[in-house]
Amino acid sequence: MTATNDNATVDAASAKTAWRPIHASVVSKRTVNPIRRIVDNLNVVPNAAKPVISLALGDPTVFGNLSTHRTSIEAMEEAMQKPQTHGYAPSIGFEVARAAIAAHHSTPEAPLTSGDVVIASGCSGALDLCITALANEGDEILVPQPGFSLYETLATSKGIGCQYYRLRPEQHWEADLEHMATLITPRTRAIVINNPSNPCGSVYTRAHLLDLLAFCERHQLPIIADEIYCDLVFSGHTFHPMATLTTSVPILAVGGLAKKYLVPGWRLGWILIHDRHQRLQEIRTALNSLSQLIIGANTVVQMALPKILADTPPSFHADTIRLLEKHAELSATCLSGIPGLTVVVPQGAMYMMVGIKPEAFADIPNDLVFTERLMAEESVFCLPGQCFGYPNYFRIVYTAPEDKLREAYDRIRAFVERHRSKC
Amino acid sequence: MTATNDNATVDAASAKTAWRPIHASVVSKRTVNPIRRIVDNLNVVPNAAKPVISLALGDPTVFGNLSTHRTSIEAMEEAMQKPQTHGYAPSIGFEVARAAIAAHHSTPEAPLTSGDVVIASGCSGALDLCITALANEGDEILVPQPGFSLYETLATSKGIGCQYYRLRPEQHWEADLEHMATLITPRTRAIVINNPSNPCGSVYTRAHLLDLLAFCERHQLPIIADEIYCDLVFSGHTFHPMATLTTSVPILAVGGLAKKYLVPGWRLGWILIHDRHQRLQEIRTALNSLSQLIIGANTVVQMALPKILADTPPSFHADTIRLLEKHAELSATCLSGIPGLTVVVPQGAMYMMVGIKPEAFADIPNDLVFTERLMAEESVFCLPGQCFGYPNYFRIVYTAPEDKLREAYDRIRAFVERHRSKC
Repeated sequence: MTATNDNATVDAASAKTAWRPIHASVVSKRTVNPIRRIVDNLNVVPNAAKPVISLALGDPTVFGNLSTHRTSIEAMEEAMQKPQTHGYAPSIGFEVARAAIAAHHSTPEAPLTSGDVVIASGCSGALDLCITALANEGDEILVPQPGFSLYETLATSKGIGCQYYRLRPEQHWEADLEHMATLITPRTRAIVINNPSNPCGSVYTRAHLLDLLAFCERHQLPIIADEIYCDLVFSGHTFHPMATLTTSVPILAVGGLAKKYLVPGWRLGWILIHDRHQRLQEIRTALNSLSQLIIGANTVVQMALPKILADTPPSFHADTIRLLEKHAELSATCLSGIPGLTVVVPQGAMYMMVGIKPEAFADIPNDLVFTERLMAEESVFCLPGQCFGYPNYFRIVYTAPEDKLREAYDRIRAFVERHRSKC
Repeated sequence: MTATNDNATVDAASAKTAWRPIHASVVSKRTVNPIRRIVDNLNVVPNAAKPVISLALGDPTVFGNLSTHRTSIEAMEEAMQKPQTHGYAPSIGFEVARAAIAAHHSTPEAPLTSGDVVIASGCSGALDLCITALANEGDEILVPQPGFSLYETLATSKGIGCQYYRLRPEQHWEADLEHMATLITPRTRAIVINNPSNPCGSVYTRAHLLDLLAFCERHQLPIIADEIYCDLVFSGHTFHPMATLTTSVPILAVGGLAKKYLVPGWRLGWILIHDRHQRLQEIRTALNSLSQLIIGANTVVQMALPKILADTPPSFHADTIRLLEKHAELSATCLSGIPGLTVVVPQGAMYMMVGIKPEAFADIPNDLVFTERLMAEESVFCLPGQCFGYPNYFRIVYTAPEDKLREAYDRIRAFVERHRSKC
């Protein structure tokens, strides 16, 4: 075995020699999660004397007060009994799962068949497929500001530019269409519309959605409709799936089990292709091709999906919404009374943006310092608005139990009082 | 509601107007699965008089004779009882799951901690992360020929070139190192080594692996070691994890639950980072960043993983290997006696490549025609070698039950006899 001995010698010898550096790819370097980048640079050390209350994480399951219905668990258990569950699914998903999603979301105004559904590894995976299918490096997409940071992470990773259209807090976070118009270039490929919104908690009216559709029609731009919070809306508000309000504008609507069924870890998302005029034929093929890169979502969840969608009792969602709505009201009430803060009352989802008036504070120049000091002094953690491209706001996730929320808001009030400008 | 009416009118009117075309992205167009491209262009209509036997699919679960151990199912059921299972995991995976993978694969020669493990959405997802982290558009990676088509799909999708190094069928599919040396350019970023191999069923000796490592050392190239079939080796052969044979060459070893635990649909893969000289520091960061794009694998499987790895009885794997080995022997015996075909006896995994001598046939000029006609006449389906970049071979997956295999091989024999050159 001369070869072996020789090699072993080579190996041992050169282990000590310096290799030329192995550099990470450009793509990996431009794959940046703004939340991580900002939070990692914050000095978020809590006050050791007070237990931490984090209102930062968009995961409804962390406190244990919101958890999935037993139907989901039973559906998984049943699915695991079927031998065909454990093999490969088609990369766009099992037919039976796609048919269930289509049936669940089909409406007379925007009919769907299983052929219009692509299953993906979470709603993140669905967004990744949509953006990758529609835009090239150097192209641009329009995304909301404030907005969910993943749009930027996904686009920038691929060298696709983000143009940020302003949302108007004074108008329940509606999109500023005049501003949006100034962002359109020959390289604009799609507009991302997130309704109900993370981080805003807004739910758009039919009229505003029609305005947005008319805008897209005028500019001949397809929509990526992020509707992951689709049914999480509060009394007096209605969720309109964008696709039900147009027969013309092509829409890729993304959703998933994560938020409505309270299983974000299960990684089951989907794309609904609404395209009544065959404008997305190439995009259908593209989504199909791209889905083959990682071959989709976990098959146990896929096989469980028909039962989850069909059998989860409506009371489960009603209970979730009731709790979130109660918490939203509590949050708005507690915080809107605090001078120096401005609240935009949420209409849905599980988020609220709270404005900070820096001029009202003696020593809090911006949202970063606000959230940093709030943690240091009161052990309450919220994400600064800059995580969503929106300085001088902070985001509240109000899924925590009521007593924790009240405690957090008491501490925020005390914090603000302490730091308010005394002049 | 003037806006609404206006918009509705606009919408209805322009539904009929032609939009400029919406083109799919370059990335999606270059995302091609060679298997799909070739199979979709084959005329694979079976003989209606004979039931189809497909030996084409690399999914061990399709026939029902190989299925996961009940420990996996029980582990999933137990995992679902834990409330923290259903929320988001860190994008590289739960610490407890990464620790279990590290413990399971750590050896004195190549020690691992949880910090060296990245969990991904299937082994495909793991390969995707590795290739994306290591190479830029315009760079190159070396991949085996014949080889698993996904390497090409992933690389080409990103504009990364594949250079195909020859494997030598007469030498149990060992890599042709002289040929490999001719492929190295200043843009070569990594070498993919797949052992045990799909589609070859080969298991490399320690000596050959050391030769490969010496080659990588000489050229200062990291290895992507696709070891998804790690323990599926037959009597007389030993699987050596590449990382155990070097202290110098940095290795990203990818694996997963799919093949060993017979749950390919569960989409749980991993990367083991072996890097004793801190040559992959940038790559670690890159993998971490890239994992945030789709936030990893299903959390139920992640939480079940420690139990699956620890409690699945060794007899389960032994039984799987015994069955595969018996089928491999049967396949080699049945087919090697057929004039016009050449067999390379498999040493592991669940695949075998069978050579076709076109000169031995009257009317079969290549592997495409062979597989097409075999389906048309005998309803036996195998993938042509061209799916793996290797013409005039076809691949057999020998996971089917023994009676089906025997029947298929009888039909192949009859088919070959019918088409053999009579001169």
